[in-house]
Amino acid sequence: MEHVRAVDWAPSGQAVRIIDQRRLPGAFVERDLATVDEVVEAIQTLAVRGAPAIGVAGALGLVAALLPWAHETPSAFLTRARAAAARIRSARPTAVNLPRAVDRLVAVLDQCHGVETPTVLEALRREATDVLEEDRIMCRQIGEWGAPLLHDGARVVTHCNAGALATSGMGTALAPVYVAAEAGRHIEVFAGETRPLLQGARLTAWELARAGVPVTVVPDGAVASLMRAGKVDLCIVGADRIAANGDAANKIGTYAVAVAARHHGIPFYVAAPTSTIDPEARTGADIPIEERARTELTAPDAAAVFNPAFDVTPAELISGIITDTGLYRPPYRFA
Amino acid sequence: MEHVRAVDWAPSGQAVRIIDQRRLPGAFVERDLATVDEVVEAIQTLAVRGAPAIGVAGALGLVAALLPWAHETPSAFLTRARAAAARIRSARPTAVNLPRAVDRLVAVLDQCHGVETPTVLEALRREATDVLEEDRIMCRQIGEWGAPLLHDGARVVTHCNAGALATSGMGTALAPVYVAAEAGRHIEVFAGETRPLLQGARLTAWELARAGVPVTVVPDGAVASLMRAGKVDLCIVGADRIAANGDAANKIGTYAVAVAARHHGIPFYVAAPTSTIDPEARTGADIPIEERARTELTAPDAAAVFNPAFDVTPAELISGIITDTGLYRPPYRFA
Repeated sequence: MEHVRAVDWAPSGQAVRIIDQRRLPGAFVERDLATVDEVVEAIQTLAVRGAPAIGVAGALGLVAALLPWAHETPSAFLTRARAAAARIRSARPTAVNLPRAVDRLVAVLDQCHGVETPTVLEALRREATDVLEEDRIMCRQIGEWGAPLLHDGARVVTHCNAGALATSGMGTALAPVYVAAEAGRHIEVFAGETRPLLQGARLTAWELARAGVPVTVVPDGAVASLMRAGKVDLCIVGADRIAANGDAANKIGTYAVAVAARHHGIPFYVAAPTSTIDPEARTGADIPIEERARTELTAPDAAAVFNPAFDVTPAELISGIITDTGLYRPPYRFA
Repeated sequence: MEHVRAVDWAPSGQAVRIIDQRRLPGAFVERDLATVDEVVEAIQTLAVRGAPAIGVAGALGLVAALLPWAHETPSAFLTRARAAAARIRSARPTAVNLPRAVDRLVAVLDQCHGVETPTVLEALRREATDVLEEDRIMCRQIGEWGAPLLHDGARVVTHCNAGALATSGMGTALAPVYVAAEAGRHIEVFAGETRPLLQGARLTAWELARAGVPVTVVPDGAVASLMRAGKVDLCIVGADRIAANGDAANKIGTYAVAVAARHHGIPFYVAAPTSTIDPEARTGADIPIEERARTELTAPDAAAVFNPAFDVTPAELISGIITDTGLYRPPYRFA
């Protein structure tokens, strides 16, 4: 049960290696990023995507981009490093993981005034590797907390991609699937296509099939029919932000799955690292929802378009929230 | 409030004129069909689609294809006409409208043994025109029965295309919208994209925008969020077959809309001609559901695909069935 590695050090240690997700599922292409331009471009064009994966790619990419400058004086290097960090930090605006990861490297820089540049680079590399390792451990822990929910033969609906491709480890929503499959249990996954960008059909189906987990692609509108036919045991989805009361923002279409699950009496779980919980957001109403371009949909010019990137599933529809620190049950009171 | 005419006699009366729906919404192209090959090809490639529209196109097309043979002897003509009818009748297998419409012309032939060919052709043209006119009247009647459900300002969710493009008249599910708009009421429509073939985004949005009805294209997975946001007053969808107990088969994704409507306390209506009711089907379980090709979905080769063309919405989720003969309320007992 070997999941893919969406982001990692290249074997040389001189670059960050990513799977180019723009090419999936048609082609499996890995790319090594070693300059600020390459890292920013990869993040902005969704070559690497998924909040945790972006954070790791930003941290590793920043270090890789700075490696050629070991000969610089400490102060010249510090100026260069801060500028590079600022550019990578703002490559994408929404997920909190990217600025958090980059800020950890900036904090290292702050402690290195006057230190020899090669030594600073070593400290940066250690911190970036910590970011990477912590992300992998987070995924594994979510998997361990969630796997007991999956009996042998369990049939799981998921939406969008919150798998290995979205992290540097085994994913969030898919981590329980990987851990249960590792333990020898037969798990089947139904992947909602996830209009408009089809991350379920393109990415979730690809990574599960590659790992040997049986997966079936389903139009978003057909998930409710699967449930009615008695073919679904539970749902697990990821989250982009979770409010203090347990309301969870995730890819558009998640709420429809939750409503259908409730109608059919099927458990509905959210899996996400505790870092996704935002106690500043009291409820889902405090979570801003990004509207995306109309060009993502096929629609005649004369028609309007409703194309939000996310929706909010209210806590009362969520059977449990699987995190790296435990499985939370309602009522949720995060602080 | 002028809806499009998906199928009609060409002005010459020598051909059936259709809107080529393969080209929508990018281009508005009308095509005149005047041979059996042209009619069959247009039906098979979905240039003309929607069960009522296919029936009308088949009837008019059969007559148009026979017009050049007015000089033939009655018996030669009869042989030719029967062969042409058989070919058009089987152009598509599922909807009952096409064979029913063609069979009406065959019945005319059966009564014309020994009659002069030009006279037979006149009788055929009259019968085909009756098929056309009855379809238009059916649409208008559905519109009249359904329009009182739409108050000024009503916001309607629909799915797939059961509009003018699917009939020779003003459609079925969209007929109440057109009639209410004609009466001066402001009606807004949310058109679910309708994966995988996007009939909502491509066809419903196009025909409503062209008629001046405000329409917004929505990913199928976002319809539930619209409801939660309080932006939907009612749903109206079409039906491909309705069982005696009121269970209704319609385009995949319809059931998910019905479940979400129930969850949010929003009325959910089915609109269809009484000819759609199949008393032979006791419940929805008796309605066969066509599975379509995996190529309609984006999915990696190693993944399975679940791609049914239709789903069944159980009668208990249907607030009313709007037909050409009246608005039926539960419990439904069709015979």
